Amino acid sequence: MTYCVGLLLDAGIVLLSDTRTNAGLDNISVYRKMFTFEQPGDRVITIMTAGSLSVTQTTIARLKDAIDHPESHPADGTGTRSIMAAQTMLQVAEIVGNTLSTVAQDVAMRMGGMSQNASASLIVAGQRKGGDMRMFLVYPEGNFIEATNDTPFLQIGEHKYGKPILDRVVTMETSLADAQKAVLLSMDSTLRSNLSVGMPLDLTVIAAGSLKAQTRRIEADDEVFHRMSADWSNALRDAFTEVEL
Amino acid sequence: MTYCVGLLLDAGIVLLSDTRTNAGLDNISVYRKMFTFEQPGDRVITIMTAGSLSVTQTTIARLKDAIDHPESHPADGTGTRSIMAAQTMLQVAEIVGNTLSTVAQDVAMRMGGMSQNASASLIVAGQRKGGDMRMFLVYPEGNFIEATNDTPFLQIGEHKYGKPILDRVVTMETSLADAQKAVLLSMDSTLRSNLSVGMPLDLTVIAAGSLKAQTRRIEADDEVFHRMSADWSNALRDAFTEVEL
Repeated sequence: MTYCVGLLLDAGIVLLSDTRTNAGLDNISVYRKMFTFEQPGDRVITIMTAGSLSVTQTTIARLKDAIDHPESHPADGTGTRSIMAAQTMLQVAEIVGNTLSTVAQDVAMRMGGMSQNASASLIVAGQRKGGDMRMFLVYPEGNFIEATNDTPFLQIGEHKYGKPILDRVVTMETSLADAQKAVLLSMDSTLRSNLSVGMPLDLTVIAAGSLKAQTRRIEADDEVFHRMSADWSNALRDAFTEVEL
Repeated sequence: MTYCVGLLLDAGIVLLSDTRTNAGLDNISVYRKMFTFEQPGDRVITIMTAGSLSVTQTTIARLKDAIDHPESHPADGTGTRSIMAAQTMLQVAEIVGNTLSTVAQDVAMRMGGMSQNASASLIVAGQRKGGDMRMFLVYPEGNFIEATNDTPFLQIGEHKYGKPILDRVVTMETSLADAQKAVLLSMDSTLRSNLSVGMPLDLTVIAAGSLKAQTRRIEADDEVFHRMSADWSNALRDAFTEVEL
């Protein structure tokens, strides 16, 4: 399992992912699930992944290869296959969706009857110079939905435990500082309840118009995260005491 | 879907269930999912149900019939089939488990290849004079687990959204008043996030040693519940503001 969450706010984009990958409870590993592609001042694109590791790794590898060696990934009907050459974020989402769908089909074909395990979903977020910030959730089949004013966050993987806090505090007007707090507390609830979601975490903030990603890894022994988690537990217990039946 | 939660505390048992039943999003109904059997001063047993309505209704109907007409439900190797005649809460759980398993198999046989839809799980809680309060989660196959000091709550149905609040505030020492608050807030988070869980709610409190259930229906327009829900939203937002990143 995995938990990745992305917020698309007036002030910018905030993305958080865990890093735990498991093949059974007795086989867990740390794999990065957040990938940033940027040319500062021109464009910044971050992709987060959930699902079968063979599908997500191959998808990211092909996207990278299309950037580095565009000549071996000829443009099809929809234009370039390099997300760094795409004209718009919508085109980026289409390239990512097509790549994911192709990889998933390749893997499913190899796996035959076991194809139900070979799927993945992605969150793609970013901004191109002159364009709006946009954020998409790409489904295993390659189609996608987009975050809007009404629903300014998207989640993939184990989304349930961490959703109530987002529902209550996140709006388009939330500041980048509060947004980071919200995704970290959302992750905290998820970490407590699902063993297949684990530290360290990767956090990316893209301020509106900055065309530049600020990325930070939060290790398992991060003092700020642990203090915040403890403070939140205490604040919740105080809030619980305050409310009257 | 459904959400039912039960707490087994030093001070007593607190149980809460929703009432929404749906066959598709376009076909929703209100059905009671909480059933109390009591002989005040001797024993009190409450059962909550989640899963296929045909399975849960038939299971409850057979349990009632075995109480009212014990002669037509002859005791098998494990003794009586009437939960009102059982010697212990453990025996009650066994009778309930056996009945559920038999009904589920009957229904599955009728449904043939579609048997995956015909399952249910139950929470059984109560106390018999001279015995301890006990609470069990009965799985679709009829086997069960029991609440303990380490995990004093059990949930069936849509359990994820409402679990974080329970994890943080419920211990064996929680008072009955706080316990009612905790299950109502746990339900509140679930109602907000899953449309297939809906009002009205049924709440039962069994004080330790009282051998008597206090049951209350909370209607969709219940003022106390709505005030508490709004207060909790505000308290959460305040708590969120307090915590520093």
